[in-house]
Amino acid sequence: MSRRFVSQLNHNETVEQVFLASNKQLRPNRQGNLYLQLDLSDRSGTIATRKWNASETDYKSFENGDFVYVDGTVQLFQGNLQLIAQRLRTARPDEVDESDYQTLQSDDVCRMRDRLIGVLRGVKSPALAALVEAYLGDEVFMEKFCRAPAGMKNHHAYQGGLLEHSLNMMEVAALIAPRYPQLNLEKLLLGVLLHDSGKVDELSYDREIAYTDEGQMLGHMCQAISHLEQKAKDAERRGQIAFPPVLLMELKHMILSHHGEYAYGSAKLPMTLEAVALHQLDNLDAKLASMSGLINDCPNTDSRWTQYFPNLDRKLWKGV
Amino acid sequence: MSRRFVSQLNHNETVEQVFLASNKQLRPNRQGNLYLQLDLSDRSGTIATRKWNASETDYKSFENGDFVYVDGTVQLFQGNLQLIAQRLRTARPDEVDESDYQTLQSDDVCRMRDRLIGVLRGVKSPALAALVEAYLGDEVFMEKFCRAPAGMKNHHAYQGGLLEHSLNMMEVAALIAPRYPQLNLEKLLLGVLLHDSGKVDELSYDREIAYTDEGQMLGHMCQAISHLEQKAKDAERRGQIAFPPVLLMELKHMILSHHGEYAYGSAKLPMTLEAVALHQLDNLDAKLASMSGLINDCPNTDSRWTQYFPNLDRKLWKGV
Amino acid sequence: MSRRFVSQLNHNETVEQVFLASNKQLRPNRQGNLYLQLDLSDRSGTIATRKWNASETDYKSFENGDFVYVDGTVQLFQGNLQLIAQRLRTARPDEVDESDYQTLQSDDVCRMRDRLIGVLRGVKSPALAALVEAYLGDEVFMEKFCRAPAGMKNHHAYQGGLLEHSLNMMEVAALIAPRYPQLNLEKLLLGVLLHDSGKVDELSYDREIAYTDEGQMLGHMCQAISHLEQKAKDAERRGQIAFPPVLLMELKHMILSHHGEYAYGSAKLPMTLEAVALHQLDNLDAKLASMSGLINDCPNTDSRWTQYFPNLDRKLWKGV
Amino acid sequence: MSRRFVSQLNHNETVEQVFLASNKQLRPNRQGNLYLQLDLSDRSGTIATRKWNASETDYKSFENGDFVYVDGTVQLFQGNLQLIAQRLRTARPDEVDESDYQTLQSDDVCRMRDRLIGVLRGVKSPALAALVEAYLGDEVFMEKFCRAPAGMKNHHAYQGGLLEHSLNMMEVAALIAPRYPQLNLEKLLLGVLLHDSGKVDELSYDREIAYTDEGQMLGHMCQAISHLEQKAKDAERRGQIAFPPVLLMELKHMILSHHGEYAYGSAKLPMTLEAVALHQLDNLDAKLASMSGLINDCPNTDSRWTQYFPNLDRKLWKGV
Amino acid sequence: MSRRFVSQLNHNETVEQVFLASNKQLRPNRQGNLYLQLDLSDRSGTIATRKWNASETDYKSFENGDFVYVDGTVQLFQGNLQLIAQRLRTARPDEVDESDYQTLQSDDVCRMRDRLIGVLRGVKSPALAALVEAYLGDEVFMEKFCRAPAGMKNHHAYQGGLLEHSLNMMEVAALIAPRYPQLNLEKLLLGVLLHDSGKVDELSYDREIAYTDEGQMLGHMCQAISHLEQKAKDAERRGQIAFPPVLLMELKHMILSHHGEYAYGSAKLPMTLEAVALHQLDNLDAKLASMSGLINDCPNTDSRWTQYFPNLDRKLWKGV
Amino acid sequence: MSRRFVSQLNHNETVEQVFLASNKQLRPNRQGNLYLQLDLSDRSGTIATRKWNASETDYKSFENGDFVYVDGTVQLFQGNLQLIAQRLRTARPDEVDESDYQTLQSDDVCRMRDRLIGVLRGVKSPALAALVEAYLGDEVFMEKFCRAPAGMKNHHAYQGGLLEHSLNMMEVAALIAPRYPQLNLEKLLLGVLLHDSGKVDELSYDREIAYTDEGQMLGHMCQAISHLEQKAKDAERRGQIAFPPVLLMELKHMILSHHGEYAYGSAKLPMTLEAVALHQLDNLDAKLASMSGLINDCPNTDSRWTQYFPNLDRKLWKGV
Repeated sequence: MSRRFVSQLNHNETVEQVFLASNKQLRPNRQGNLYLQLDLSDRSGTIATRKWNASETDYKSFENGDFVYVDGTVQLFQGNLQLIAQRLRTARPDEVDESDYQTLQSDDVCRMRDRLIGVLRGVKSPALAALVEAYLGDEVFMEKFCRAPAGMKNHHAYQGGLLEHSLNMMEVAALIAPRYPQLNLEKLLLGVLLHDSGKVDELSYDREIAYTDEGQMLGHMCQAISHLEQKAKDAERRGQIAFPPVLLMELKHMILSHHGEYAYGSAKLPMTLEAVALHQLDNLDAKLASMSGLINDCPNTDSRWTQYFPNLDRKLWKGV
Repeated sequence: MSRRFVSQLNHNETVEQVFLASNKQLRPNRQGNLYLQLDLSDRSGTIATRKWNASETDYKSFENGDFVYVDGTVQLFQGNLQLIAQRLRTARPDEVDESDYQTLQSDDVCRMRDRLIGVLRGVKSPALAALVEAYLGDEVFMEKFCRAPAGMKNHHAYQGGLLEHSLNMMEVAALIAPRYPQLNLEKLLLGVLLHDSGKVDELSYDREIAYTDEGQMLGHMCQAISHLEQKAKDAERRGQIAFPPVLLMELKHMILSHHGEYAYGSAKLPMTLEAVALHQLDNLDAKLASMSGLINDCPNTDSRWTQYFPNLDRKLWKGV
Repeated sequence: MSRRFVSQLNHNETVEQVFLASNKQLRPNRQGNLYLQLDLSDRSGTIATRKWNASETDYKSFENGDFVYVDGTVQLFQGNLQLIAQRLRTARPDEVDESDYQTLQSDDVCRMRDRLIGVLRGVKSPALAALVEAYLGDEVFMEKFCRAPAGMKNHHAYQGGLLEHSLNMMEVAALIAPRYPQLNLEKLLLGVLLHDSGKVDELSYDREIAYTDEGQMLGHMCQAISHLEQKAKDAERRGQIAFPPVLLMELKHMILSHHGEYAYGSAKLPMTLEAVALHQLDNLDAKLASMSGLINDCPNTDSRWTQYFPNLDRKLWKGV
Repeated sequence: MSRRFVSQLNHNETVEQVFLASNKQLRPNRQGNLYLQLDLSDRSGTIATRKWNASETDYKSFENGDFVYVDGTVQLFQGNLQLIAQRLRTARPDEVDESDYQTLQSDDVCRMRDRLIGVLRGVKSPALAALVEAYLGDEVFMEKFCRAPAGMKNHHAYQGGLLEHSLNMMEVAALIAPRYPQLNLEKLLLGVLLHDSGKVDELSYDREIAYTDEGQMLGHMCQAISHLEQKAKDAERRGQIAFPPVLLMELKHMILSHHGEYAYGSAKLPMTLEAVALHQLDNLDAKLASMSGLINDCPNTDSRWTQYFPNLDRKLWKGV
Repeated sequence: MSRRFVSQLNHNETVEQVFLASNKQLRPNRQGNLYLQLDLSDRSGTIATRKWNASETDYKSFENGDFVYVDGTVQLFQGNLQLIAQRLRTARPDEVDESDYQTLQSDDVCRMRDRLIGVLRGVKSPALAALVEAYLGDEVFMEKFCRAPAGMKNHHAYQGGLLEHSLNMMEVAALIAPRYPQLNLEKLLLGVLLHDSGKVDELSYDREIAYTDEGQMLGHMCQAISHLEQKAKDAERRGQIAFPPVLLMELKHMILSHHGEYAYGSAKLPMTLEAVALHQLDNLDAKLASMSGLINDCPNTDSRWTQYFPNLDRKLWKGV
Repeated sequence: MSRRFVSQLNHNETVEQVFLASNKQLRPNRQGNLYLQLDLSDRSGTIATRKWNASETDYKSFENGDFVYVDGTVQLFQGNLQLIAQRLRTARPDEVDESDYQTLQSDDVCRMRDRLIGVLRGVKSPALAALVEAYLGDEVFMEKFCRAPAGMKNHHAYQGGLLEHSLNMMEVAALIAPRYPQLNLEKLLLGVLLHDSGKVDELSYDREIAYTDEGQMLGHMCQAISHLEQKAKDAERRGQIAFPPVLLMELKHMILSHHGEYAYGSAKLPMTLEAVALHQLDNLDAKLASMSGLINDCPNTDSRWTQYFPNLDRKLWKGV
C-alpha cells in the first residue's frame, strides 16, 4: 500500500506507517498518568502525536531523529489534526525510504547546487571571481550550505532551503539586472551568496532545526562576516591578488544591512544600490515562499480563508 | 553653442539660455527690497533661481510653465547650486526645443506605451482581457496615464513617470513569474496597471506637479477604485460577460493593500499572493529608482557620500 | 416558570430552557472521546457550553442559528461560567419567544428608525436633502441598516447596533452643534449616516455576526464609498440637481478619515472640521458603550475591578 | 481712524497704531548691524516684527508686556506676514483701549464665570457640593482660574482660555449626560473643573504666557492633585463631613488619566467611565478649537488649503 | 528530617512538610469533578499545587496565608514542576519555623534598616537632614517601608524587597559619587529614598502581594508626592526651618521622572542631573536583580538557556 | 596677556589670539559676495566664525587643522555666540601652546592610560589575562585607543574621550562589583575594554572628528569583533593556550549587545548578566557626561533652563 503523506491525512483516518520522530516528551496528565508526546514528520509536513498510558520504556525505545513505525488514528483537535498512536516502535531499515522524509530530494539539491555554481562561475571581475572560488572550493562550507535551512520557521525551513532561497534570489537578480543598469550584478550575486551564509553555523540541522549557542548569541550576520574575512584572505592566496578593501567593505555592508531596518535586527541601513536591491530581493522571495506555504498548509478545507496569523496580523485568502 | 543642461552646471559658471519656469514668487528681503525667486528646469533637473532687485513688472512678465530666457551665474549656496539671474524674459518660440525639457521624449513615451499595450494584450482570461480593453480603449485615461508622473517627489516624479514605473513592474513581473508558479501572472499584471492608476487624478501635471484637491483629500487608492468600478461595467458591455464579483474584489484588494503596511497609508494588509507580489515589486522598482536618483543628483563631487537624507535616516554611498 | 437570562445565571444553577445556538463543534478529548462544544445565547449574553460523550448524531441534530432546548448545569471554569449540558434538542416553535433573543426589541428598532429618519429629514440644503432621500428611499439598504451590528465585538455588536450607534451620534451632534458654530451640522449628520454605512455589507448578521469576504478584503470604508457614488447619482435623478463635486468629495473624505489615525486603519487623516468632529463623536459614543459593556458583563462579583483586558492594557473600576 | 486688527492686515499695508509687545530681542545681522525683533499683538492675533538699524536705546525703551505705538509696513515673508517698523515708542495711556488686546473681554469673562458657577452650584451630592464650594470660595484660585490660558499654544492659548475651555466641556457634558445614563454627571463636572486646574500654576500669564519652573518640572497634573488635597480638607471643614476616600481617589484618577494615553503624558489610563468621558470631551473641545483656529488664522487667501502643519502631519481644508 | 526547599524539589520526589498557602481555588474539571488548586511557597520559591477530587470541605479547611502540612508528589508538567497533593491540612504551630518562609530573615531586615539609617543620617545640609528625620521618625512609615516589596513581580518582589532595593541604590550611589562630582549626592540619596516610597501604599503585602485600589488607580508616584508634602511640613516643624520650595520641587521631580520615559509611565522626563542618575541607578539595580532571579529560578537543568521570556523578547544564557 | 578661552567669551568682546581651525567653507551671500565660514576651537569649546568679504586667497591661506591667529568681535546670533573675524592668518609656532587646544592634557592621558593598564593587569584568569596582554601589547592599537574620542558628538567627543569613558566604566565596575556577586568582574572589565574599541577605526580624529568610510558603512561593533578575533589568536600564541570558544562567544556578545535595544542599533539584546551590566554602566556614564556637558556649555546666563534639545525632547534644569 502506498504511503499517505502528512499533508494527505484526514480526520478519523487510520495510519500504519513510518515517520521521522522529534521533540519527544514524557508527561503526566492531570490524573497523574504518563503519556508520550512527540512530533512525527515526513517531507510533506509534521503532525503532533500523543500516545496515552505510556511508560519510561516507551520513552526510551527511540531517539529524536529516529524513524519510527506507528499505528494510530488521526483526530481534529482545536482546529489542528493530531495523531493518537496505539503502538510505536523504531522502524526496520527496509521499512524506510529516506526520500519520503526530505522536502528536497538529493537530486533536486544536486541540480540546484550545479545551477548555483553555474551562476557564480559567471562572475568575471578578478577579485570577486577569486572570492567565489574561495567559497566554492571549501567543501565543508559547501556541504553545509547545501544542507542548511534558510530559517527556523517562516520560509524555506527545511534542509536545502538555504540553497533554494539563495539560488532563487540569484536567478531573479540575473533576470532583472538588465532592467536596472545602475546595479552591479556581480556584487549583487556575491551579496546573495553571503547574506545568509552565516546560517550554516547559526542553525544546527542534522536531525532537527535549532539555533546553535553561537547562533543565538551572535546571529548569522556576525558569523557571515567572520567567514568572509577568512575567504577574502583565501581569495588573495588563490588569486594572487590584493583584495580591494573598499570592495570588501561593500560586501560586509550588504551582509550587515540586508534586514533593511533596525527594527528587524539590521545592524545598518542599506546605503549602496546593491544593498538596497539585496534587501528587496530577499523580501520578495521570502514573503512569497512563506505566504504560499501558509496557504498550502492550511488544514481547514471548509473556508476560503486561512486561520488568523498573529505575527502577520491577518488571515490569508485561499480563493474560491 | 550647444545647451548646458542643469545637471552639467558648475559653481561660477555663466549661463545664457532657455529654461522652463515654475514656483515664481516676489518676496521682500530683510532690508525690504524685493527679489524674484523661481525654479528653472530642463529635462536633466531643476535649479533654484533668484533675481535680486526685482519689481512687480518682472514678476508679471511671465507665467509659471512658460519658457524663459535667462542670463546669470551659478553659485554654490549651502551645499546646493543656485542661479543668480541678471536678466530674465520670456523666450521666443524659435529659441525653444521642447525635447530639452522633457525627461522622457515623446518617442520614449510612445515606445513605452506600445510595450505596455503589448504586455497587457497578452492577458487571455476573458474577464481580465475585457477589462484590459476597457482601460486601453479609454483614450482620455490612456492619454493621462502616459503623461502622469508616478509621484510628487521620490521616484519617477516627471511626466511619463507613471507609465515608466508601471511598465517596469509589468516586465519584471513577466520575467520572474515562471519562478513563482503559485502566482497568477494575469491578475498580477492587472494589479500593476491599477495600483497607481488613481494618480492620473490624484496629481495635476500639466505645467507643474501638484496634488489636486481630490488627490489630497481622497488619495489615489480611492480614485483607482472608482475608475475600476466603471471599467468593470464597460468590460461587461464590451465582453458581453458578467464580470466575476470575486475577481473584482481581488483586484480592488490589490489597489487597497499595495502600500503594504497601515503606517504607510495602506487601507488593508496584502492577503492574497498577488497582492503580496504587487507590494514587493512596487517597492523594488520605486526604491531602486529613488536611490539611484539621489546618488546621480548629488552635486557634491568631493565626497564618496551623498548628503544625509532625513527621511531615509542615512547618507548614500556613491563609491570610489 | 419564567426564563433565567444568561446574565442571571450562577455557579451550580440548573437550567432547563431554550437558547440560540452558534459555533457548534464536535471534538475529541484527550482520551479520544467526542464532546460537543457550542455557544448558547439570549438577549442578555452568551455562555460557552459543552456536552460530554456526544456523537455525530448529536452534532447533526441542529444547525447554528437554531433555537435549542437544553437541560444542564452552570459551572465556574477558569473565571468564566460555562454550561454543562445533559440533554439538548431543537426547540418547538411554541417554546420560543423571539424577543428573548434580541438585544434590541423590534419596537426599539422601529422607534430608533423613526427618530433617525426624523433627524435626517431636518436636513434642508437641497443636495444633502436629496442624498438623504436617496438613502432613506432605498428599502433594501434601510432594512439592512436597521438590522446590522456596529461591529464584530467591542461596541454595539448586536443586531440593530449600527442604527443605535448612528442615531446616538446624530442626536449628540445636534445637541452640541449650537456650541460649535464653526461646524456645518448638516454635513456632519450626513457624515454620521455614511461613516459606518459600509458595515451593512462588511458584516453578515443573519444568524451570527461574521465578516463577509468583501468585508475582510476591502473593509467598510471602501464599501461605503461605492454606495455613496450610487446614491449621489440617485440624488441627482431624484432632486433634478447636479450634486456638487466638492461636497461629494467632502463626504467621501469623512468616510475615509473617520478612524482618525493611520495606525487605526484610517486611509486619510481628518482635514475638515466636520471630519474632525465625526471622528471625535464616533470615539466618544463607541468608547462609552464598549467600556460600560465590559463593566456590566463582568461576572466576578467579589472584586471592585473587572479582569485585565489586554487590548485596553488595563482593568476597569466597577466602584464600591 | 478705527483700528486695523492684526487679523485684518494685508501685504504692503501701512500701520500706525498701538500693539502689545512681547519677546523682544536685539540681534546683529550678518553684516554686524543690530536690529530689533519682537512680537506685536492685539486680541485678533500676533505679528512678527522687525526694526532694522536698532540700538540698545531702542531695545531698552520699552518692556515686554508694554503697549507700544508703531509705524511701519506689512510684508509677506516666507508665507507669513511680518511688520517692518520704522518707529516704535511706548504708548501714552490715552492711546490705549485695553479691550483691543484681550481675546476675551472682561464682560465675556464675567458672563462665563457666572455660567460656570451656575453649573457647579447645580451639584447636589453633599461631598461634591462641599468641594465645589471650597474651590468657588477660594478667591485667589478663582481669579487665576478666570485669567489663565488653557495652554501655551494649540487651543485656548489666551487669558480666559482655561475658563472658556472648562465651561464648554461642562455645558457639553450636561447636554449629553441624559443620553449616557451610566455616567455620573456630578463626578464628571468635578472632573472637568479639576482636570486642567493645575494650569493656574503651571503657566505664568500676567504679561506673556510661559511655563513656570514648577510647571515645567512637575506638570499641571501633579499641581492639580496638590490643590485637590487641600480643597478636600477645606470641604471637610466647610461641610462638616468626612470626604469619602474612594470619591477622592476617583477624582484624583480623573486628573491623572485625562490625557488618555501614556504617550501623551498621561500618568494613568482611564479606568472609570467618568475618566473615559472626561478624556473624550477634552479631546473634542480642544481639537475643534485648535483646528478652527488654524483655519481662521491662515493668511494665505489664494488657496483652499492651509499650509502643512508638521505636528498634525497634514494640511487643513478651508473649503471653497 | 531536614526541610526540602521548593528550589530543591525534583521530578518524582515525594514531599511531606509545611508550606505557606495562597491563591486557593476550587474548580470543576471537564468531567465535572472538583479539584483544589493553590500555590505553596517557602522562602526559596513557589510551586503550583493541585489536589484532585477535592470537596468544599477541603476548600474551607484553611485560608490563604495559612501554613499547611502537605503530603504529595512532584511532577514536571509543561516545563514547570507542580505538586500533586494527596493530603493537606493546617499545620500545628510546633511544625512551623517562620524563618523558612521569609526571603529575608528578620535579622537581615534589621541590619539593612540600620545601614539605611546610617547612610541617611550622613546627610548634612539642614533642610534635607530635617526631611530625613521626618521620614525616619515616622514609625508607621518605617515599619511599612521595611516590610514592603519593591514590586508585584520582576525584581525584589518579596517582603523587605523595597528596603533591599533602596539600600542597594544608596550604597552604590555613595560609592560612585566621588567619580561624578557634578552630582549632589545628598539630593540623590533623598531621591532614592523617595522614588519608590509610594509603594508602601501602592501594594498590600500582609499575606500576599497585590495592588491596593489606590495603587491601581493612582500609582506609587502620586502617593509618594503626597507623603513628601506632609513630610516637608514635618521637617519645617522639626527643623524650625522654611523648606526651600525649589528643593522641594527638585525632589518631587525626581519622583515623577524616575521611570525615565513616557512609555514606561514616567510623568516627566528627567531634567536634572540627579534625576538622570536616579533613573540610571534604579535601572541598574532592578535589571541585575530581575535577570539574576530569572536565571537562578530556571528549573530546566538540561539546557544552557532559560526559556524564552516574552516581555524581554529573549532567552537568557546560563552558561556552561 | 593671558588667553581667553572659548567658554569665557561674551557678547561684544574683542578677540586677538590663536585657535584651531576646522570646517572652513567659502560661500556667496545672497548678494553674491563671498564670505568665509569656519569653526574655531580650543580645549574649552568651539565657536562658529565668519569673515565677511573674503576671497579665494583667504580660503587657501590655511588648512583645516591649522592653528590660525584671529582678530575679531564676538556677537550673540540666534541664541548662540559667533565670532566675526576682521583678520585671520596662520599662526607662528611660537604663538601656539598646544596644551590650550586639547581637552585632555598629555599628562591626563598618560595618567588615565596607566590607571587603565593597572585595572586590566588585575585580571587573573589565564585566558582573559592573555587577551589583555594582546591588546596592551599592540602599540598601534593603544596609541589610537588613547587618542580616539568616544563619539562624534553627545559624550566624550574629544581626543582621549574613549580612554576616559572606558576607564570611568572600569573603575565604576570595580567599585560596585562586590555588591553584585553574581557578576564576573573580569569578564565585565574585558567587555568594557572591547565595547567601544571599534571606535579607533570607526572615527578619524587626527585633525577633526569624522566617520571613516568603514565606520559609516560597518559601524564600530563589526570592527571591534574583527579586532577581537585577531587578538584572541594573539592571546593563544602569547599565552600558549587554546582560547575557550564559549568565552570568546560571550565577549563578542557583549560587543554586539551593548546598545541594549534594536532601536538603538543593537545587533542583539543582552542575554548574559555581564552584557546587561555593561549596557547599564555605559548608559550611566554616557548620560551623566552628556547632560553635564549640555548644562555646562549653555551660553544663556539669564535663565535657569537650558534651551530645548529636540533629540532629548526636553530642556535641562541648571538650578538657581
